[in-house]
Amino acid sequence: MSTLRFLPTLFCGLLFAATSCTTEEPKTEPVTEKTDPLPSWNDSERKTKIMDFVSNITDPNHPDFVPVADRIATFDNDGTLWSEQPVYFQLLFAVDRILYLAPQHPEWEEREPFATILNWGLPGVTKITQEELMEVIVVSHTHLTTDEFHDAVSAWMDTAQHPIKKVPYTDLVFQPMLELINYLEENEFKVFIVSGGGVDFMRPWAEGVYGIPKHQIIGSSFETKFVATDQSFEIQRLPSLNFFDDKEAKAVAIDRFIGRRPIFAAGNSDGDLQMLQWTSTQSLPFMNLYIHHTDAEREWAYDRESHIDGFNIGWDEAKAKGWTVVDMAKDWKQIYPEK
Amino acid sequence: MSTLRFLPTLFCGLLFAATSCTTEEPKTEPVTEKTDPLPSWNDSERKTKIMDFVSNITDPNHPDFVPVADRIATFDNDGTLWSEQPVYFQLLFAVDRILYLAPQHPEWEEREPFATILNWGLPGVTKITQEELMEVIVVSHTHLTTDEFHDAVSAWMDTAQHPIKKVPYTDLVFQPMLELINYLEENEFKVFIVSGGGVDFMRPWAEGVYGIPKHQIIGSSFETKFVATDQSFEIQRLPSLNFFDDKEAKAVAIDRFIGRRPIFAAGNSDGDLQMLQWTSTQSLPFMNLYIHHTDAEREWAYDRESHIDGFNIGWDEAKAKGWTVVDMAKDWKQIYPEK
Repeated sequence: MSTLRFLPTLFCGLLFAATSCTTEEPKTEPVTEKTDPLPSWNDSERKTKIMDFVSNITDPNHPDFVPVADRIATFDNDGTLWSEQPVYFQLLFAVDRILYLAPQHPEWEEREPFATILNWGLPGVTKITQEELMEVIVVSHTHLTTDEFHDAVSAWMDTAQHPIKKVPYTDLVFQPMLELINYLEENEFKVFIVSGGGVDFMRPWAEGVYGIPKHQIIGSSFETKFVATDQSFEIQRLPSLNFFDDKEAKAVAIDRFIGRRPIFAAGNSDGDLQMLQWTSTQSLPFMNLYIHHTDAEREWAYDRESHIDGFNIGWDEAKAKGWTVVDMAKDWKQIYPEK
Repeated sequence: MSTLRFLPTLFCGLLFAATSCTTEEPKTEPVTEKTDPLPSWNDSERKTKIMDFVSNITDPNHPDFVPVADRIATFDNDGTLWSEQPVYFQLLFAVDRILYLAPQHPEWEEREPFATILNWGLPGVTKITQEELMEVIVVSHTHLTTDEFHDAVSAWMDTAQHPIKKVPYTDLVFQPMLELINYLEENEFKVFIVSGGGVDFMRPWAEGVYGIPKHQIIGSSFETKFVATDQSFEIQRLPSLNFFDDKEAKAVAIDRFIGRRPIFAAGNSDGDLQMLQWTSTQSLPFMNLYIHHTDAEREWAYDRESHIDGFNIGWDEAKAKGWTVVDMAKDWKQIYPEK
């Protein structure tokens, strides 16, 4: 980018040394081909607001100008960067992993909650308690090294298919959000994921899919332990939760991992509310985006009116505070990337 | 950088369109001014090893080539990037802050360990127990918001002076290490601090002094809490430790915050050993640097032979494994930056 930006100046400067460049220049601005940075967004008020925000905070002559170091953006993942229905995808990984591990655990056939999962597969998660569900997640995510878990997630992502859409999970990322991340990065934002999902579940694939480096991916985590083995060293994943990166904890995580407030944040549920509140608590200009799932045909439609948990107080506050609410059905030309 | 690098090509390309640029080029390599990236390092075996390592891992035709995404470097702070004598500087902040807060706490005149600190100042820390010392640190670092603590550290750094050197603490960073950080960054490394010191004690000044962004500074931390106030939101610092980023925890923190192993790590004490061990546990080429404090005249001299805690097993392993041990007196032309 920076080289291209300097090209016209250089060209004229060099010619000017020999002849008289300036007099030959047209008086009007030369026609530059300006590509739309957000081609999957319809020309709505929301798109205009995003582009105006970025244009203003990057313009050194605008009162809203923000120095590069403060251009921090944080995105929730499930429901904001990719789909989260019929359940968040990490739970589908957990169920698949229990099925995968079952041959090594014949005792699970008699032991709950594993017996129910082995019998029913995914629908089994609706037949067990919240406490039992946590045991499914703990057992499927721990008792192995960080390297082994990384490989297990990668292998699953390479082969598993979404139960309804019948495509790989990474095909279910939102094309308009990929464009938005890229647009912010081109404008010298540092873009972070701040997800309730497991950080070690995201890192194996999210860097490649979103173009966000692993160290800018923040999420929930299990306790880990550095251990010297006979020949080497490893980090083991322990069966106890270290950090659940949801609600208030998202603001805490932003402070702990990033050390400055975002000026741009995007979420879609009650779990993202405090991240958006924290983004709004500052002297710099900021923008909060709230993704409203309205597209039953191309994706899924659900919100406060669906009477399911998790889409109430965030939605209310987004409307009350005038944050930018994206209507997926109306605002997005395309939901998922082209194959 | 990228614009400057392209300049000669552009220049020749444009001229070539008009005349015949190529024939006028000298057959031999044009003399390019090659500035030494590490001018404060004497021409020792250590300097050569560092420069060979960087040259090899950045050369796409070399078997040791490492892709940019994997170019992660981690540096300890106290004793590696700046001095840590007569005690680590954060402890001096803690003592100063107790003295600063004392007028609001008349009860401290009668209450230990504060009475001892108020009576003796810094030497008081040698007269109290380890548990009491922890209380001094907790009280001086918590019971306020993250914004307030940031301002308290900044104000102290702007005014406080080192008790022996009589200069601001930020004058006591190591010039050769500033050059090394810069050299790695120019070669597309992401450089992180991984310190036993408090992350919120470092972030207010370290970004400016080292050129390392706040989100690449990792350290110990207290628990924090996101709180809605009448008008706004704040993050409060609570009087209980969240994470002590030392020894095994440094490897754990690298995994949790960065998500990949470093290929370059630098430390100077037993607290850094596991970070160096973790760096050495991988398939990519790596380099471990161990800073040996040998310069009693310009800085301080201390190591295994000084019979003080913290400089034993790290030192032994650095020598046994053939890691690169920097002799400050011999290898560094200059210790601190010029005024």
